[in-house]
Amino acid sequence: MKKTRLEAFSDGVLAIIITIMVLEIKVPHGEQFSELKKLIPILLSYALSFIYIGIYWNNHHHMMSTVHKITGGILWANLHLLFWLSLIPFATGWIGENHFGAAPMALYGVVLLMAGIAYYILQSLLIKNEGKDSLLAKAIGQDLKGKISPFLYVAAIAVSWMNAILSGIIYLIAALIWLIPDKRIERALRQSGNGIDD
Amino acid sequence: MKKTRLEAFSDGVLAIIITIMVLEIKVPHGEQFSELKKLIPILLSYALSFIYIGIYWNNHHHMMSTVHKITGGILWANLHLLFWLSLIPFATGWIGENHFGAAPMALYGVVLLMAGIAYYILQSLLIKNEGKDSLLAKAIGQDLKGKISPFLYVAAIAVSWMNAILSGIIYLIAALIWLIPDKRIERALRQSGNGIDD
Amino acid sequence: MKKTRLEAFSDGVLAIIITIMVLEIKVPHGEQFSELKKLIPILLSYALSFIYIGIYWNNHHHMMSTVHKITGGILWANLHLLFWLSLIPFATGWIGENHFGAAPMALYGVVLLMAGIAYYILQSLLIKNEGKDSLLAKAIGQDLKGKISPFLYVAAIAVSWMNAILSGIIYLIAALIWLIPDKRIERALRQSGNGIDD
Amino acid sequence: MKKTRLEAFSDGVLAIIITIMVLEIKVPHGEQFSELKKLIPILLSYALSFIYIGIYWNNHHHMMSTVHKITGGILWANLHLLFWLSLIPFATGWIGENHFGAAPMALYGVVLLMAGIAYYILQSLLIKNEGKDSLLAKAIGQDLKGKISPFLYVAAIAVSWMNAILSGIIYLIAALIWLIPDKRIERALRQSGNGIDD
Repeated sequence: MKKTRLEAFSDGVLAIIITIMVLEIKVPHGEQFSELKKLIPILLSYALSFIYIGIYWNNHHHMMSTVHKITGGILWANLHLLFWLSLIPFATGWIGENHFGAAPMALYGVVLLMAGIAYYILQSLLIKNEGKDSLLAKAIGQDLKGKISPFLYVAAIAVSWMNAILSGIIYLIAALIWLIPDKRIERALRQSGNGIDD
Repeated sequence: MKKTRLEAFSDGVLAIIITIMVLEIKVPHGEQFSELKKLIPILLSYALSFIYIGIYWNNHHHMMSTVHKITGGILWANLHLLFWLSLIPFATGWIGENHFGAAPMALYGVVLLMAGIAYYILQSLLIKNEGKDSLLAKAIGQDLKGKISPFLYVAAIAVSWMNAILSGIIYLIAALIWLIPDKRIERALRQSGNGIDD
Repeated sequence: MKKTRLEAFSDGVLAIIITIMVLEIKVPHGEQFSELKKLIPILLSYALSFIYIGIYWNNHHHMMSTVHKITGGILWANLHLLFWLSLIPFATGWIGENHFGAAPMALYGVVLLMAGIAYYILQSLLIKNEGKDSLLAKAIGQDLKGKISPFLYVAAIAVSWMNAILSGIIYLIAALIWLIPDKRIERALRQSGNGIDD
Repeated sequence: MKKTRLEAFSDGVLAIIITIMVLEIKVPHGEQFSELKKLIPILLSYALSFIYIGIYWNNHHHMMSTVHKITGGILWANLHLLFWLSLIPFATGWIGENHFGAAPMALYGVVLLMAGIAYYILQSLLIKNEGKDSLLAKAIGQDLKGKISPFLYVAAIAVSWMNAILSGIIYLIAALIWLIPDKRIERALRQSGNGIDD
């Protein structure tokens, strides 16, 4: 019961976050196709953030499907995660407004990093609650992707001051790592009984 | 379980998309009824987009009701569809802002075309998963409407450079094809055991 | 199954409509309490529209709880209702922007009237589907409130050109009719076996 | 049935309220990190309001989980609560816009106070409906937190005219009271059989 409502609320917030970003794409006043050129950085940053929210929704979805108990602490860890994710439209809008400027690119990484930490806290609380032998603990396993991501975010933040495009490419790679399932690793984990997380 | 949450998330996003478009209708400053005249193109494009999102919600709803298995690929194919649909409020706003200009009318068709392709990918993945003898495969049958629509969108895009109003009429016809069920075709399909998709 | 998703989608759209109106309340730049005085018409029209959407949600909720079958026509009748309700934030914003001007007050009535007609169409389709002896047909009974409301809206539209405040009072009365249950009528209907609709 | 839809609608509205506040955080035009300094009051007030909506969602969630019967009066008491909560984004935006000015800080307290009263009315109606020996009545018990909060809001409103920062600190304390569970009181209540409300 509790879990259903936590999922419904999270789905609602994520659905709004993912759609609200469209409001940042201001309708151009002119009616030439050339007007859309100015919007390219906005559309690109929108697409990237859409993928990130999609990944979070996907992972949240998988993680929660294995959970049985919800405590007050978990509710707040979940809200904490939603708080950082709710700042993604703002960071996305700032990138689009400034055509991939250094500070906006760095802020984007900070928000992703904080969201990643919030997700890790939620995941740890859930594992603690479910027990080390639970399906969840096994499913998450060594959590390679979760461990690599923060390093990529930090790298992108550092790089953003030198080359904003390179920074954007790192964010894209960090997203693709979650999107493209590494079949070999999956198989290895499956054989070792550690399970997978996608 | 998985399916329920995918449906709930899609419903949330579609409900937000359909309502968010109202925000594009800027409240006029004057208080004469004549102020509303300027809003007529905006209201017309809003109504058309409302119908399109309604059609997608309707079809998504029907399609999902026959589905049993959800994979990671399906989740992403669904997000891909939602991405293109989320750009409809933007395209709609641009049409309204420019009173049916050529480029906005063409962009509208591009977004509809991409959404149609995304829907086709999702549908194909679902059929592949459910099997060729599944209820879904039979229900979709020859998918006449799905096959005609992209041609209409392409026609409307081409026509938009010559006559934007004609282009708008084609979008309306493409919508009405989905709205008005062709009783004869339906009956024929029913007799041939191919089923219908509305 | 179908019904659940229709309810969920309608709830989503109504929840967004009711909340989106807050976005019309522009944050004042000054920091004196006197700034809020200018916002009083906006706040009053917001409160009135909040009540109207609340009434629609309430009635929709009751009506749907007795329904068993959902057809394609009902889905579209429902979307038609949501379309007119989605214009309430716009009409509300126009009233607030113009401090109860004549045209905005009249437009508000037109939107309410169209929403009322859309609700009537939905209700008729549902009764036709459920049958004349169904719980729904009995629950709606003589539908006194439903029959009085359009006359009040038309009256308010006519009056708005002479006295906008009086027009606003009529909208308020039309809302209160739904809010305050008439105990005597309810009892009479209950005794006559016609049931009630609140 | 009724309860499910009331919860779903409330979840939807709360999810939108909590996310809509992000729209108040206007994307800065410049691309220096220094631009973000101006946003600090906006971000702080956003974080505080996020916590408050989170608390209300949390408490609403707990309260409803013990409820069995929903009446028309309860539906409206719930809408009344949602009305006041829907004004939080507006009050939050005013604080952010004016960098913690006196009047915005006072208004914030007024909205919180009205939301608190609305919550109390809803809670009282629910207890009246469920009965004095119900799980809900026991779970709420002496409702210490609920009794202290309004005094803190009134204090913060009074203080706001002298020291806005102090006022903000009181709002933060009033929130933390709900966040940090007082273990000793919980234990005492548990032993006395009065139960707890978190």
